[in-house]
Amino acid sequence: MSIKINLNADLGESYGAWTMGNDADMLPLVGSANLACGFHGGDPLVMRKTLQLARHHGVGVGAHPSYPDLQGFGRRRMAMAPDELEAAILYQIAALDGMARTEGLRVQHVKPHGALNNAACADRALADTIVRAIRAYDPALILLAPALSELCAAGHAAGQPVVEEIFADRAYLDDGQLVPRSRPDAMVHGAEASYAHVRRMLDEGAIVSVTGKRLPCRIGSICVHGDGAEAVATARYLRERLSADGCTLVGLTELAA
Amino acid sequence: MSIKINLNADLGESYGAWTMGNDADMLPLVGSANLACGFHGGDPLVMRKTLQLARHHGVGVGAHPSYPDLQGFGRRRMAMAPDELEAAILYQIAALDGMARTEGLRVQHVKPHGALNNAACADRALADTIVRAIRAYDPALILLAPALSELCAAGHAAGQPVVEEIFADRAYLDDGQLVPRSRPDAMVHGAEASYAHVRRMLDEGAIVSVTGKRLPCRIGSICVHGDGAEAVATARYLRERLSADGCTLVGLTELAA
Amino acid sequence: MSIKINLNADLGESYGAWTMGNDADMLPLVGSANLACGFHGGDPLVMRKTLQLARHHGVGVGAHPSYPDLQGFGRRRMAMAPDELEAAILYQIAALDGMARTEGLRVQHVKPHGALNNAACADRALADTIVRAIRAYDPALILLAPALSELCAAGHAAGQPVVEEIFADRAYLDDGQLVPRSRPDAMVHGAEASYAHVRRMLDEGAIVSVTGKRLPCRIGSICVHGDGAEAVATARYLRERLSADGCTLVGLTELAA
Amino acid sequence: MSIKINLNADLGESYGAWTMGNDADMLPLVGSANLACGFHGGDPLVMRKTLQLARHHGVGVGAHPSYPDLQGFGRRRMAMAPDELEAAILYQIAALDGMARTEGLRVQHVKPHGALNNAACADRALADTIVRAIRAYDPALILLAPALSELCAAGHAAGQPVVEEIFADRAYLDDGQLVPRSRPDAMVHGAEASYAHVRRMLDEGAIVSVTGKRLPCRIGSICVHGDGAEAVATARYLRERLSADGCTLVGLTELAA
Repeated sequence: MSIKINLNADLGESYGAWTMGNDADMLPLVGSANLACGFHGGDPLVMRKTLQLARHHGVGVGAHPSYPDLQGFGRRRMAMAPDELEAAILYQIAALDGMARTEGLRVQHVKPHGALNNAACADRALADTIVRAIRAYDPALILLAPALSELCAAGHAAGQPVVEEIFADRAYLDDGQLVPRSRPDAMVHGAEASYAHVRRMLDEGAIVSVTGKRLPCRIGSICVHGDGAEAVATARYLRERLSADGCTLVGLTELAA
Repeated sequence: MSIKINLNADLGESYGAWTMGNDADMLPLVGSANLACGFHGGDPLVMRKTLQLARHHGVGVGAHPSYPDLQGFGRRRMAMAPDELEAAILYQIAALDGMARTEGLRVQHVKPHGALNNAACADRALADTIVRAIRAYDPALILLAPALSELCAAGHAAGQPVVEEIFADRAYLDDGQLVPRSRPDAMVHGAEASYAHVRRMLDEGAIVSVTGKRLPCRIGSICVHGDGAEAVATARYLRERLSADGCTLVGLTELAA
Repeated sequence: MSIKINLNADLGESYGAWTMGNDADMLPLVGSANLACGFHGGDPLVMRKTLQLARHHGVGVGAHPSYPDLQGFGRRRMAMAPDELEAAILYQIAALDGMARTEGLRVQHVKPHGALNNAACADRALADTIVRAIRAYDPALILLAPALSELCAAGHAAGQPVVEEIFADRAYLDDGQLVPRSRPDAMVHGAEASYAHVRRMLDEGAIVSVTGKRLPCRIGSICVHGDGAEAVATARYLRERLSADGCTLVGLTELAA
Repeated sequence: MSIKINLNADLGESYGAWTMGNDADMLPLVGSANLACGFHGGDPLVMRKTLQLARHHGVGVGAHPSYPDLQGFGRRRMAMAPDELEAAILYQIAALDGMARTEGLRVQHVKPHGALNNAACADRALADTIVRAIRAYDPALILLAPALSELCAAGHAAGQPVVEEIFADRAYLDDGQLVPRSRPDAMVHGAEASYAHVRRMLDEGAIVSVTGKRLPCRIGSICVHGDGAEAVATARYLRERLSADGCTLVGLTELAA
């Protein structure tokens, strides 16, 4: 039985003179790129160049909106009022989508970044605010969100197209949350272990926790890391093995529901 | 003989906890509002609220892109590379236009802000970069630019729709440039003097300098200030007198050529 | 019986082209000024001019460090790691104190700003981080903190000089916390009511809550607001009435313990 | 004949999640480190960690103040008013020096960064503003500036201690300015060529231009790059060869005049 699966990565996170990740090597390997929109990384020129690179490789682009926190790379939770946050997300999606149009592209999906994403996975009110911003911009935009999260639930409840993702290199708790990075077993190291981790979850149709607990869920996309020494090798390995398994690697538009 | 004329003002320049100008009182008085896009003022929530206010009053909205310089309010020239500047302007137009769409509006025009505008009035290469950014976004966007400037020339040369503006409260040099603010005669003070200043230039179909020199030009729009104690009173007076003179106050879309 | 009391206000919160508060009128009325250090307001030129004004009026200056959040004016909680926060506070104190030295002044005290202050009043670990930053800079700096707060407790535990403050225009809950601004009874309105509020707490030697509950505490300073229409009038009235009552209005250095 | 010479490098230029340069490897090789102060790089935590590393290696630290332009890494000229710029430089020196004190260090020197440095080398009024900021902070701070520049001249004229530097990897024009990076002969590539370049200028007691013209000047310090693949190797090679030649590698305090 063939399944369709998407690979996504966070890209376009350089800023001015600072480089992050290896966008040129990662873009040919993924189906969807979540692009920084200037609030945690990605100045306008980085955004434009990354969009051009994405177009060249035929990769679907999504907005990766963040809290306004360059210094913290969007990794620090901020207590923004709902109307502030909604406007901030709208601004980021609009900026990227408008720039994408000039390159003959359109933003296909939205995936919140860093602390905003983490917070929204467990906080339904915050998730609803994010979904409201996305819907205000375009009710057809795909929400790419962690499987079993409140963010997914908010998207489904609003009738927004949703694709559920799992992480290739992160272990899960019994409640479906990620094992905190402070724990030694938080990360799945290496391309082979990442593949085995992903493979098992795809086979089970479920998130499988560190204790072996099975949490059934839809899985449409696999998030691979865009930076770090192993990122490219892991993404390439996953892509090859999944293809060899008979999976069809697709864009998000073929998956959203 | 009736002429059509537009009034424009720079609005939406508050930021976070800081208020600037009197948008609520100015918006009913102008035909077009140049809205800050986050680089010199105008955080996302300010942008959204100002867009809603503009829609309520039926005012045409334009992007007012700036150098990335909050601390300097976009009033300090910055030596940006052409590709950096083009991307920065594109980002700002895109962000505002995308937010405008969610309010049922579209950005109609672009007017560069502060030091960027001043620099582009005398620097054709810079003006060309700005026009390139505008055209990349939408070749139908109106460029609102000071009459007789290099920015106007760049717009016309590229085939972009252009509306020429004069300033109600600024005096002109014999070469058509503004009298520098450092000179005591830089400003035209008070509503009546501003009206007389504008009236004479409309009658002459020309910029009239402090020495009385006449520089013939198209005049489509009059820029009134959005902040300062006199701003609202001057805008109201100009509007009333021009209407009494038989001018039709219009949006920029009726004027662009 | 004469008592010594200090009046303090948050000042120097303008930024670039945006003005906040009425520093010129407030400075002659207070004994201590908490000056923004660039992270929520107060660019370097504003800082320098406010320091010069403070020196002119003989007002003691303190650092008013904030989360790095200009857009949110430091009013949004941010989850900063302890080492990040400690360095951020140290940076702000150092910047202000070094600038103060060039004006012949020294920073005498530190009062955290906005959301950072609110969070530290209830979170001992956060309070300890703030106190660690202050001590790293100078163990003789006075911590100005809300009476009965965890921030006071952290200062006392570390042996840092502390002055406890109450708010002239904010009502208190039975646990000594401020009534949230969302409640209609959060604010004490007008100069006379503010004086009565303060007078009662000084007489009781206690915070007096909205229900009349008495929470005994040391009170060394009264915080008055630096912006808003009533700010100057209220500060002047408080100053006059307290003087008439026989209070001696002093700097923080006469009060710290 | 033994001469004393200093090696300096721009360090501490990482920001948040973005890394730049190889501070840990460069610090043992140089006598003086020019540390970013938050305006072009170097957030507070980066500053603190770099100061600690400098103390560990016994390296003298200097402030490397910049235009306020994170996005442009301080490489874009900005037209700041003299009082704005003076305050901005003062703020950065103060922040770094105050943080240095907490590590048992003091800022010894100041070297303007990037576009600010380049502009001040040819603009005496700008150079005077920079020197005024340094003197306001501490008349004993050493100004580290390119040999033969207006910045050096401004420092000497004001009586500020000055150390003149040459660049190990940059070629010079006949007027003593750097060959613009746009020219193919702008850079001196590789450790051996850099050493030969430096050696010749030390032997001649002069800047030697690309055409062989000799511009006599004092040379106290050699600037080596802190980032790039060759940086560490070149710095190490220069250090070894100069030592083998009998040069004594010293801190700036032994050289200032």
